[in-house]
Amino acid sequence: MEKVIVALDAMGGDYAPEQTVQGAVNAVRSSSDIKVILVGKEERLKEELYTKCGYSGDAIEIVNATEIIEMGDVPTSAIKNKKDSSLVVAMKLVRDGKADAVVSAGSTGAILVGGQLVVGRLRGIKRPPLAPFVPTTKGFSLLLDCGANVDARPEHLVQFAQMGSIYYENVMGKKNPTVGILNIGTEEEKGNQLVKDTKPLLEQCGTINYVGSIESREIVRGAVDVIVCEAFVGNIVLKFFEGLALTLFDSLKQGLMSSLRTKIGTLLVKPALKGLKKQFDTSSQGGAPLLGLKGLVVKAHGNSTSKEIEIAIKQCVSFKKQKINEKIKESISE
Amino acid sequence: MEKVIVALDAMGGDYAPEQTVQGAVNAVRSSSDIKVILVGKEERLKEELYTKCGYSGDAIEIVNATEIIEMGDVPTSAIKNKKDSSLVVAMKLVRDGKADAVVSAGSTGAILVGGQLVVGRLRGIKRPPLAPFVPTTKGFSLLLDCGANVDARPEHLVQFAQMGSIYYENVMGKKNPTVGILNIGTEEEKGNQLVKDTKPLLEQCGTINYVGSIESREIVRGAVDVIVCEAFVGNIVLKFFEGLALTLFDSLKQGLMSSLRTKIGTLLVKPALKGLKKQFDTSSQGGAPLLGLKGLVVKAHGNSTSKEIEIAIKQCVSFKKQKINEKIKESISE
Repeated sequence: MEKVIVALDAMGGDYAPEQTVQGAVNAVRSSSDIKVILVGKEERLKEELYTKCGYSGDAIEIVNATEIIEMGDVPTSAIKNKKDSSLVVAMKLVRDGKADAVVSAGSTGAILVGGQLVVGRLRGIKRPPLAPFVPTTKGFSLLLDCGANVDARPEHLVQFAQMGSIYYENVMGKKNPTVGILNIGTEEEKGNQLVKDTKPLLEQCGTINYVGSIESREIVRGAVDVIVCEAFVGNIVLKFFEGLALTLFDSLKQGLMSSLRTKIGTLLVKPALKGLKKQFDTSSQGGAPLLGLKGLVVKAHGNSTSKEIEIAIKQCVSFKKQKINEKIKESISE
Repeated sequence: MEKVIVALDAMGGDYAPEQTVQGAVNAVRSSSDIKVILVGKEERLKEELYTKCGYSGDAIEIVNATEIIEMGDVPTSAIKNKKDSSLVVAMKLVRDGKADAVVSAGSTGAILVGGQLVVGRLRGIKRPPLAPFVPTTKGFSLLLDCGANVDARPEHLVQFAQMGSIYYENVMGKKNPTVGILNIGTEEEKGNQLVKDTKPLLEQCGTINYVGSIESREIVRGAVDVIVCEAFVGNIVLKFFEGLALTLFDSLKQGLMSSLRTKIGTLLVKPALKGLKKQFDTSSQGGAPLLGLKGLVVKAHGNSTSKEIEIAIKQCVSFKKQKINEKIKESISE
């Protein structure tokens, strides 16, 4: 089978390039379907790849890029001005058909802007949503849009529902996934203007399994597979999830270390706690795709380690194998 | 000192009237500052109060109301048509100066509509926000608006900030509380149109201690005292908080009961877990006030037990003693 080629923004993220390069090495070592192009400062990447990781195979190559987009850079000007940055060069590889996908743990804003300006939208797609999986008691739900393009219109949300359904079905292997719109109540009259205007359009949309409004307290119980919302709200829910889960586990840890008695108890319950922490880790799925672009763009968490980078790279395989973009194109242009 | 008179919608809530009446009894038994008027079906309330609770004092009286607003009722028509409902009669007591405050665990929508139509807004108040305290690692932050009046305008949010500051300062006893606007990033250019339009107005507002944008992941760390947002977003954050905290504790419990080893460990760590669960219980503060009305309206959680009803009733004392409404009137009309 033809390999899936992933362009990795090797300089993006809190622990780049050490962890990004290590993640790439892990990915190609554990999967023969993948080729990775490391994009970034060549000398630095050579050192990491050959000297530190001791890699000598041919499933990873290096493409030089002299600049780095920093977290503080304004996204639009960074993409326009830093043409030789690792992110822009990686994205150009996708645009030019030299790679199937780009993975970056760098600035979310720059990835969103670059995805649209460099990789480009599929024809008919009005706005590409950032679509992370969020953990639930039943598995995962797709929450989209969690990007930075706020104040969406109803027709955007309908496309999010369509693309999200295709992505969920093909990645999670569940036929006809359920779709809900995030709302402040399930009654007919509930919702802000955007939700009220979007609901009838979702009801009329023949290609999705729309089940109605979903309240935020139902998200973690896995009430629906695909949750559609405007990006300001999605972003706030996602970050609140991260913040609350982290804080609860931190507070739990503190409480458990408060006395000898609880310390002994903690030794006994540790496996259960670890399992729970892992289950509700919002970054456990590696990265979030930006749907509706001409190639795949995956945004990994800024603090990704080699493990998350490896997962994000491997995600790209099923995206290509399942022909998700072809299916999106067919569905939207219907 | 003159007693604070609280009209209790004795028929509102999942466990009414048993728990509402018990809550009233507990409140007057533990605080001599309070008088409660139980509003609802007289015969039923007499039975609860005199027979079941064995109350015989004069700090509780009963006012008859023959109707009940159900959770499924459409708020506006319920308030207009069920004129002899426990909620409407209780609110009329406040409107007519016969009570200082009304407490209800009934339908949020009906309480919001009734607050505006029956009790009435203070002069100059454009929209009364529902303002619950949310638990943080530092104590509590006030999150407003969490009501059902969505799609707010910038001038609404500025009033929320002003009223929230006064409420926080007087109830929590912290001078000059910090105010943040809920946003998807702290950078200048971040935000939806409402946030962008509101930020300069908050900066110019001389009566508050505005510190800028706050990200949702910072909420639980207690980043600011008063968090201002539009009601759709506030509602979603509040309910997501409830849902996630509940689910995490449920999953933790399941994990801890999974083997003999973890069961033994659980016995040892139980106090720490209980403390944590209590700390992050979103209903621990009893009820949320609807700010900016001519009297105090407190919305208690639908599943309130006597404990939460008691706290909600006692809340009304400091509201009146601290002359919060007088201070709001002064501040807004400045």
